[in-house]
Amino acid sequence: MATAQDSYLNLVSHPVAREIAGRFGLPRPAVLRRYRPGEPLLPGPVLVLGGSGADALAGPLPDLGLQIRRQAAHGERLGAIVAVLDEVAGPADLAASALAVGAALRELAPGGRIVTVSRQACETLPPAAAAARQGVEGLLRSLARELRGGATGNGILLGDGVDVDAPGVTGALRFLLSARSAYVDGQFLLVGSTDGQPAAEPERPLAGHTAVVTGAARGIGAAIAEVLRRDGADVVVVDVPAAGEQLAAVANRIGGTALQLDITRPDAGARIIEQAGRHGRIDIVVHNAGITRDKLLANMDAERWDAVLEVNLAAPLRLNEALLASNLLGPAPRIVCLASTSGIAGNRGQTNYAASKAGIIGMVRSSAPLLAARGGTINAVAPGFIETEMTARMPAAARQVARRLLPSLQQGGLPRDVAEAVAFLSGGAAAGINGQTLRVCGQSLVGA
Amino acid sequence: MATAQDSYLNLVSHPVAREIAGRFGLPRPAVLRRYRPGEPLLPGPVLVLGGSGADALAGPLPDLGLQIRRQAAHGERLGAIVAVLDEVAGPADLAASALAVGAALRELAPGGRIVTVSRQACETLPPAAAAARQGVEGLLRSLARELRGGATGNGILLGDGVDVDAPGVTGALRFLLSARSAYVDGQFLLVGSTDGQPAAEPERPLAGHTAVVTGAARGIGAAIAEVLRRDGADVVVVDVPAAGEQLAAVANRIGGTALQLDITRPDAGARIIEQAGRHGRIDIVVHNAGITRDKLLANMDAERWDAVLEVNLAAPLRLNEALLASNLLGPAPRIVCLASTSGIAGNRGQTNYAASKAGIIGMVRSSAPLLAARGGTINAVAPGFIETEMTARMPAAARQVARRLLPSLQQGGLPRDVAEAVAFLSGGAAAGINGQTLRVCGQSLVGA
Repeated sequence: MATAQDSYLNLVSHPVAREIAGRFGLPRPAVLRRYRPGEPLLPGPVLVLGGSGADALAGPLPDLGLQIRRQAAHGERLGAIVAVLDEVAGPADLAASALAVGAALRELAPGGRIVTVSRQACETLPPAAAAARQGVEGLLRSLARELRGGATGNGILLGDGVDVDAPGVTGALRFLLSARSAYVDGQFLLVGSTDGQPAAEPERPLAGHTAVVTGAARGIGAAIAEVLRRDGADVVVVDVPAAGEQLAAVANRIGGTALQLDITRPDAGARIIEQAGRHGRIDIVVHNAGITRDKLLANMDAERWDAVLEVNLAAPLRLNEALLASNLLGPAPRIVCLASTSGIAGNRGQTNYAASKAGIIGMVRSSAPLLAARGGTINAVAPGFIETEMTARMPAAARQVARRLLPSLQQGGLPRDVAEAVAFLSGGAAAGINGQTLRVCGQSLVGA
Repeated sequence: MATAQDSYLNLVSHPVAREIAGRFGLPRPAVLRRYRPGEPLLPGPVLVLGGSGADALAGPLPDLGLQIRRQAAHGERLGAIVAVLDEVAGPADLAASALAVGAALRELAPGGRIVTVSRQACETLPPAAAAARQGVEGLLRSLARELRGGATGNGILLGDGVDVDAPGVTGALRFLLSARSAYVDGQFLLVGSTDGQPAAEPERPLAGHTAVVTGAARGIGAAIAEVLRRDGADVVVVDVPAAGEQLAAVANRIGGTALQLDITRPDAGARIIEQAGRHGRIDIVVHNAGITRDKLLANMDAERWDAVLEVNLAAPLRLNEALLASNLLGPAPRIVCLASTSGIAGNRGQTNYAASKAGIIGMVRSSAPLLAARGGTINAVAPGFIETEMTARMPAAARQVARRLLPSLQQGGLPRDVAEAVAFLSGGAAAGINGQTLRVCGQSLVGA
């Protein structure tokens, strides 16, 4: 099947186009390091830079099977560089860490990781401290654009009262260091609470949990179901009756349960709760089902507008209400929604889709306290340019590619990359993360 | 002088490149409508869509010389479409307004404006309301990408307790409708308070105000000095002694006062206060002075890092402290800082610059309460791809252009476009806007 990425690769291999591509510095992508069970977390030791915060952060890392370095040794390939900047109080405090990271960069292995750990720049801080903390974002996002060979750069932001040794920080760090975050780049994860604990079985962190995934017959939804299963969950896969055959195939492949259901039906919540309730309780719900009905707004009709808003936004809102009212919700429920970078930056021809996906971002932010009251979380994952059947069917695929030509990783992501982020947010390690939207976009240029 | 834009235009006019450009749908830019004194605010009447909020919003508009329509009349060219969405409480409430805007789009004149007016999606709302409010952002940002002919789309967000007829809303709307906002596209202005009043002389809103502009010898700084002067301010232009000759020329051109000063000197604040104090008081300070010392972080040295952080961030922080401690600050002081889209999204080779400009964003956010306590505001303007001598000197200009190839307006902005945004934030009409960063970027793709 020809994907948009294939179109681009074919175009760019034409001699004339190659010359133009060279002129503009267009991509020759690296193969990304992706998760395989049993492989080490990182391709080398972790250099942890910083003061006493770095000591505290490094404490639990050997338990993850990591070797720690506090200084770069010339010639030793590093799996990751972690810069702990939790004590930054003014602009002058950034230099030492930034330059130390820079000095160690040449030792970073292909597929390596940079992670900054710093405090959130809240409004109530003195200006110099807020400036320095916000400065970390400019530093990290620029640095992420400088990395090559499939390496990524991301940050962890500590909320008020959260210290570097909080379990949620270790959990977020583990995800960002691992191959599970292959296409997460230039992003910040806010750890806003001290909740969370290491999984009893790190390779099967969702063992014993029941998950529901909507829109699971193909593409990103099928990948999510597979990854949740791989991580130990019992999965109920949901899709419309028209996709029944594909849905059954997914369910068979993962030993899950198929539920043919149109999520816009008034009784959809009751049906899902009934089906998943047969497993005893519902721990994880992934609102992945989504449709596009692209048209320029000048040509938009009510049918296209309403269909997209109904499936992508109104249905998840109703399902969440039903779930929160149900007594079958587990003790630490997780809801993960699929947003989109279109919902952040907008996209030509997608006013309806972007409105629905921006809506998801607003929904998770304001639903966070409701889930926290139940011991749970709700977050969104916003895919950027992911290679799926849907992108392959795009009418002007080459133009779409041109628009997003230069993510730092120089390639589109895979459905699996989105699924890994969903699985992370579905587990106990992400208990401190609530109401957030995590982009899985290879730091593609989307605007806002 | 060859600018980066010229380089792109030359390249794209080569037959082979033109074919590639056509393949990718690359730009053939429109001439933007830019402000000239005496011209009407808009090239046609304003269609105001919505319920009772639309009535309230439309009330003061005839005083701005605008003709109001509440329904599109077929064949009449519209100067603007304003959609008032202040009562949106769930996803289904978006359809009517979105489709009404779509139905009127074909009547929008070149250089026309779309403005949405909606409420901020705060965390404490019910999920459906938060979702719908956030949905407006996806809708507007997508729509802005669909406009052609130099038309733009922007939004006004109402803070808690702010209604559509607040003076700050009228002020923000006037700016967004006007030719002063030519390169502001896909952005949201949060009006967070009910402060603000219409200027006594709308064409000279800064009459009687004293302004200080740093880095004013050339480029964006010189343009800011000129526009503030055009709007009525007495301007003190500041730059380093080495730029003394150009600085004097700017001062002469605008009938202002030149102050040769390195803003990183410990006594810089005192010197500026002394000089500007000769005008009686200081009303407006524009922190525009900035430098770049680009290097990949792997090759960065302390000298380059420190110089950029010192000039771009530490010096403005110190100057603000001195100003706030001074008794020469006027009764409604305005501080406007130059950030950059590099500070939002990062930029390869600019870890130091992006850290400093992200720092500015953090600084204005947390300085806002300090200024509010003095009856004033502090905000930032973040230029995207602006054509200046600095961009012309870029070593890989074509590559830079490729990176930002497709802002919705299909061209770089001018220093004047940044200056207009600074002037707006310096005036009484913007009194309700505090702690914000306004991008002037033609909705270019920058990522985050």
